[in-house]
Amino acid sequence: MRVRSLRIVISSARKFINMGALSRLWNLVKNFHAADISTLMSHLISRERLTLFNILFEKDKEKTGEALSELEPEDAAAILKELQLEQITELIQIIPPDDAAPILNLLPEELKNSILSAMEDKPSEDVKGLLHYEEETAGRIMSTNFYALDQDTNVSDAITAMQLEGDVESAFYLYVVDDQTHLVGVVSLRQVLFTRPNTPLKDIMTKDVISVHPETDQEQVARYVADYNLVAIPVVDAEKTLVGVVTVDDVIDVIEEEATEDIYKMVSLDTTDRIQNSPFKSIKKRIPFLMFSLFTASVAPWVVHYFEGTIKEFVTLAVFLPLVMGLGGIAGNQTIAIIVREIAIGQTEWVGARKALLKEMLVGIGNGIIIGIILAGFSYLLIKNPFLGLILGLAIIINLFVAALVGTLIPLILKLLRLDPALGSVNLLTMCTDTTGSLTFLGLGTLFLTKLT
Amino acid sequence: MRVRSLRIVISSARKFINMGALSRLWNLVKNFHAADISTLMSHLISRERLTLFNILFEKDKEKTGEALSELEPEDAAAILKELQLEQITELIQIIPPDDAAPILNLLPEELKNSILSAMEDKPSEDVKGLLHYEEETAGRIMSTNFYALDQDTNVSDAITAMQLEGDVESAFYLYVVDDQTHLVGVVSLRQVLFTRPNTPLKDIMTKDVISVHPETDQEQVARYVADYNLVAIPVVDAEKTLVGVVTVDDVIDVIEEEATEDIYKMVSLDTTDRIQNSPFKSIKKRIPFLMFSLFTASVAPWVVHYFEGTIKEFVTLAVFLPLVMGLGGIAGNQTIAIIVREIAIGQTEWVGARKALLKEMLVGIGNGIIIGIILAGFSYLLIKNPFLGLILGLAIIINLFVAALVGTLIPLILKLLRLDPALGSVNLLTMCTDTTGSLTFLGLGTLFLTKLT
Repeated sequence: MRVRSLRIVISSARKFINMGALSRLWNLVKNFHAADISTLMSHLISRERLTLFNILFEKDKEKTGEALSELEPEDAAAILKELQLEQITELIQIIPPDDAAPILNLLPEELKNSILSAMEDKPSEDVKGLLHYEEETAGRIMSTNFYALDQDTNVSDAITAMQLEGDVESAFYLYVVDDQTHLVGVVSLRQVLFTRPNTPLKDIMTKDVISVHPETDQEQVARYVADYNLVAIPVVDAEKTLVGVVTVDDVIDVIEEEATEDIYKMVSLDTTDRIQNSPFKSIKKRIPFLMFSLFTASVAPWVVHYFEGTIKEFVTLAVFLPLVMGLGGIAGNQTIAIIVREIAIGQTEWVGARKALLKEMLVGIGNGIIIGIILAGFSYLLIKNPFLGLILGLAIIINLFVAALVGTLIPLILKLLRLDPALGSVNLLTMCTDTTGSLTFLGLGTLFLTKLT
Repeated sequence: MRVRSLRIVISSARKFINMGALSRLWNLVKNFHAADISTLMSHLISRERLTLFNILFEKDKEKTGEALSELEPEDAAAILKELQLEQITELIQIIPPDDAAPILNLLPEELKNSILSAMEDKPSEDVKGLLHYEEETAGRIMSTNFYALDQDTNVSDAITAMQLEGDVESAFYLYVVDDQTHLVGVVSLRQVLFTRPNTPLKDIMTKDVISVHPETDQEQVARYVADYNLVAIPVVDAEKTLVGVVTVDDVIDVIEEEATEDIYKMVSLDTTDRIQNSPFKSIKKRIPFLMFSLFTASVAPWVVHYFEGTIKEFVTLAVFLPLVMGLGGIAGNQTIAIIVREIAIGQTEWVGARKALLKEMLVGIGNGIIIGIILAGFSYLLIKNPFLGLILGLAIIINLFVAALVGTLIPLILKLLRLDPALGSVNLLTMCTDTTGSLTFLGLGTLFLTKLT
């Protein structure tokens, strides 16, 4: 939010709402950008939010629609549920189809169908068209408003045609199609401005257009836009007919969403778990993952259990065990973080997997040797037992090597299985490093037990 | 890369380079997009990369410059170091100043100054101007090429003026200034197309322009562009004079960079640690962080050491200890991931910090009770000792509560200290949960020792 203090805005809005001072509330927000109104809304509780929403809806329907588009679909759907069918229909028609579709999808099936039939034909068809595609694909996030003209149109006629079409939100390109409406080129509006009026579009268009299909994964769409520095990317069907355009603002949302998903999936979190959710809702979202964690964290104790006799003989092993496990986990997490991000940014394809594995294994051994020697030295100074130092150092070297190996393989294997490369990776990694750590450290301890005690 | 198999392209390029078949190499890449050439380069070793670069430079200087812009500054600088001063100067002048500045900054001071004096005045001044600003600010990533015209200019004259100015890469807006060159408005090129020729710009411009200062942190710039769905954001100095424009393609780079930094800093990684670095370089980057980890991971062992006597009496405690520690770490990582991302996406300002803390604490207790009871039940079935179940359950409840508390506080406190909220957070968290876990579990074990044995 640009306003200097969001805190002040929120507390003023709260005060006005609770006082019932609706005209003061309206004065506070009327010059806000729609994005700021939605930020304010996300900081209010649902009753307050509804009051603000009602006054907005009464005063400025256009801005209400814009603010609704900016909200998380879950929050927008929660507000719409409180309204009359006619109000919902009116609002849904104001907001762009690609923002309307995910909101509608969160409403009860019956209400959704009533809204779709109450809507005018064109927007209703547009929304239905988008709902037809799977979630997280280009089809779901594309806009169906764009300028497309025949390649033989000249620049002057193109300008007239676009003027008749009216303003298209965030249109920076004019798409050029042949007589079968296949996409054949693209012209920037800047080029249109700079070209003599009688030039046909086909003479100035860029022919090598980067496009995607409606089924293309949104992450792939984002990669193209990011790699080729685009502001919009056209979506074409199997016949090369232009069906929509994904604009850069939606791509930014995808990139932020995917980055959040990477972090969340690494630590086994539901991707919809947000600070705004009620504690009860978050507990419900986190429990299944914690059960999974309970499972992955239960493997190492079985190994330790096996060595109970050794520990009883030389309890110092139990003291150093968390250190061996912990360092393995940390080093492995580093490798996972690197591989997950490289996959996300598209650097590591299978062509680089072998190289990545080899490199991380070398790093694991190298770091293991350095940290192992340091730790062996320290422990010798503390405990004065060279054999403890020796097995501690060896266990660290082996565990850091395993951490690097497993940390590289987990995301790559998950990707090969067509799962998210980050999915539960930290849990799986910790399971492996904790197990290897206890197996090597306690195993070596058993082997050298006579030297230790 | 759009080409179906990057693997084939890389192996062909390699083959041609090693055969010295330079014309076949050129035929392979000549129709590639500059971004694809830079992807190919990043998969070659430095000797091969230089061969490809030389043939590109000989055949198509423009595309060479574009490919250079797309490379990581470190890789681009490494290539430039191998060239003659005249070649470097020529290339540096082709690429946009905001891409040239970070590359120049990585060259030896002497070479950098020679290049800056060998360059023509205008580009040299532009680059020097950017270098003047601190890293990671708007000033560093802004472009100094943009259209800016007086507010009294009419649309027809504006078009002529822009045509004379020539093509400005990725310009979608025309900025409007008053007679003191202060930014007063913005007009989209689409509006220019749609307006009658004799209309003055001031009649169609949007007056409430969202702008930033050259000193504004690049993350803040990215937030504005993302929140307000912009394609470019103007940069103005203290006198409101327009000095540059940050375009959305640079913003996407910033968002991806910051997301990588979030993940990297959470697990204590150097933000420049990449899979392409040599193992030696990565070891050098990771060792200081592993030393820090060695320190954070060494706290819990002291606690365990204190309870050696208890463990000797009842070794089963050592078996379950990794489980108590592990689950605390996992739950805490989840909280950290949520808070770090919420801060990154700008949801959690201090206004929400208290609410976030309270919520996570409730989630911690709730999850602790559920997981604690399950674990107590399981352990009772395995060990048939109700007291072990009791202390295990209690330790889990306390540790999950502490995990939530500390997981929320660490990023918030780091932010308050003006450090990165993610910085080493997972290490600090694990230090706290491992310590609390062993203290509560082994402490309770000592208390109930007579009931356990």
